[in-house]
Amino acid sequence: MPAFDDTQLTDAVLHSFAGAPDPRTRTVLRQLITHLHGFVRDAGVTMDEWQSAISFLTRTGQMSNDRRQEFILLSDVLGVSMLVDAINHRGDTGATDTTVLGPFYVGEHRVVPHGTDLAPDAPGERVFVDAGVADVTGRPIPGATVDVWHADGGGRYDSQRPGYARDQPAMRARLIAGDDGRFSFRTIVPCSYPVPTDGPVGELLAAGNRHAMRPAHIHFLLRAPGFETVVTHVFVAGDPYLDSDAVFGVKPSLIARLETHDEPTWPDGTPAPVRWYRLFYRFAMKRLD
Amino acid sequence: MPAFDDTQLTDAVLHSFAGAPDPRTRTVLRQLITHLHGFVRDAGVTMDEWQSAISFLTRTGQMSNDRRQEFILLSDVLGVSMLVDAINHRGDTGATDTTVLGPFYVGEHRVVPHGTDLAPDAPGERVFVDAGVADVTGRPIPGATVDVWHADGGGRYDSQRPGYARDQPAMRARLIAGDDGRFSFRTIVPCSYPVPTDGPVGELLAAGNRHAMRPAHIHFLLRAPGFETVVTHVFVAGDPYLDSDAVFGVKPSLIARLETHDEPTWPDGTPAPVRWYRLFYRFAMKRLD
Repeated sequence: MPAFDDTQLTDAVLHSFAGAPDPRTRTVLRQLITHLHGFVRDAGVTMDEWQSAISFLTRTGQMSNDRRQEFILLSDVLGVSMLVDAINHRGDTGATDTTVLGPFYVGEHRVVPHGTDLAPDAPGERVFVDAGVADVTGRPIPGATVDVWHADGGGRYDSQRPGYARDQPAMRARLIAGDDGRFSFRTIVPCSYPVPTDGPVGELLAAGNRHAMRPAHIHFLLRAPGFETVVTHVFVAGDPYLDSDAVFGVKPSLIARLETHDEPTWPDGTPAPVRWYRLFYRFAMKRLD
Repeated sequence: MPAFDDTQLTDAVLHSFAGAPDPRTRTVLRQLITHLHGFVRDAGVTMDEWQSAISFLTRTGQMSNDRRQEFILLSDVLGVSMLVDAINHRGDTGATDTTVLGPFYVGEHRVVPHGTDLAPDAPGERVFVDAGVADVTGRPIPGATVDVWHADGGGRYDSQRPGYARDQPAMRARLIAGDDGRFSFRTIVPCSYPVPTDGPVGELLAAGNRHAMRPAHIHFLLRAPGFETVVTHVFVAGDPYLDSDAVFGVKPSLIARLETHDEPTWPDGTPAPVRWYRLFYRFAMKRLD
């Protein structure tokens, strides 16, 4: 008959999962239970704190939908997303550094031609993104698909706007790399913005007296057959939040400078505003073994 | 400029919460981050496993509503609920042992008179529960409120039935202890039953090759002004699952024997079935300091 003290209890829970047929499942559950029980014991979690945690986790799930993922955001602000990224990308392979997916990726984007303006109606300064993708030896990867997304001048993704319809995307598209591996698009210069603070994650940041800001960036998700997928951002140099990103996502190799231009035409020959910027970035992908 | 390896990352996250104004919040978050990052690192969580965990937690929140709490169930089957119980009830105070609240408490119940049949329409053998509540010295606690709930012969709580309405409860009521501290009710003999397996927790149990059964029990939640609340069960002696409760909730002091009776009347003098049982239990509550 069981009559567990708190140490015997942990052993009993570990034992209950010892018959898991899959060895990897056994390993993960053993580590999970050891650390989860260790947390409860070391923190001396009270009944009220347990109730609060149940409520917090429940509301985090319930705030998530096909346009917003509050659990990913929670993972992000606790540094878990970047930790998973770090332990799965140890060592320098020559590929572009990775960073968080973030909570606003909504699945595959609609393909647009090179040079498309992704934000024709958005106020803001204009940037021409001149990019390319190659393998780690510099050979172009024609046909690589590149999903791109970023926030507007108010810090909001299209999917955060009232009345958002997935078939009418803004600041969100897929580009296909050309024969030279290059692709380009026009859009507004992104700005730093807060992660959403109207949910449980906002409560956590407030309790920690932490700001919610992310430095300005554009998301890129690159896929090509035979290559490791790259989930990353390009950050804008000079942003005041590069040192204190709310999700710990900045890596120096991902920061790019905006070149200021005043030529009357964009690089593709079409008429440009009085002042515009050019953001140049070359991505590298690692061949799968 | 940050460029975190995985150890520096944990330090950065800990540092980000170092300014939390409340010292208890600082302590809990420090322990949480240390153990959460320790788990990710020691288990070597892959990107795919992280995605699965995000999905699992999201669905756990989304399966919860005002009638069912899948996160409490998750806490239960991972032994976390009983661990929190254990570390908050160390040492023998003389009060009744506590156990899990479980996922089916729906908030305060409707008061019924002593002797009420809580399951007049349910098939099953009949039991008369003869109970009382006193302080740890044996002095009755008149007016203590006792919420009682249990599952039907098919292992389902009223709140799990299709068309459940909270204002038409079954096998669920509140009793008020009399001047002698005693209270009683009639109902069906509870049976062992599986916790719900149609949600994420069911997936977890299956992955662990664990059964979902709980030994037969009746839930009791006792409250009285000036006393520590008691959240507990009374288990039925002889149940085959007393040694392997899916939620680790059994304590020997909470097991009671059913006495078999064949008198033609219940203890309150009303006509009884040919065979009936009596379950006798005395609860003890600890005075708040």
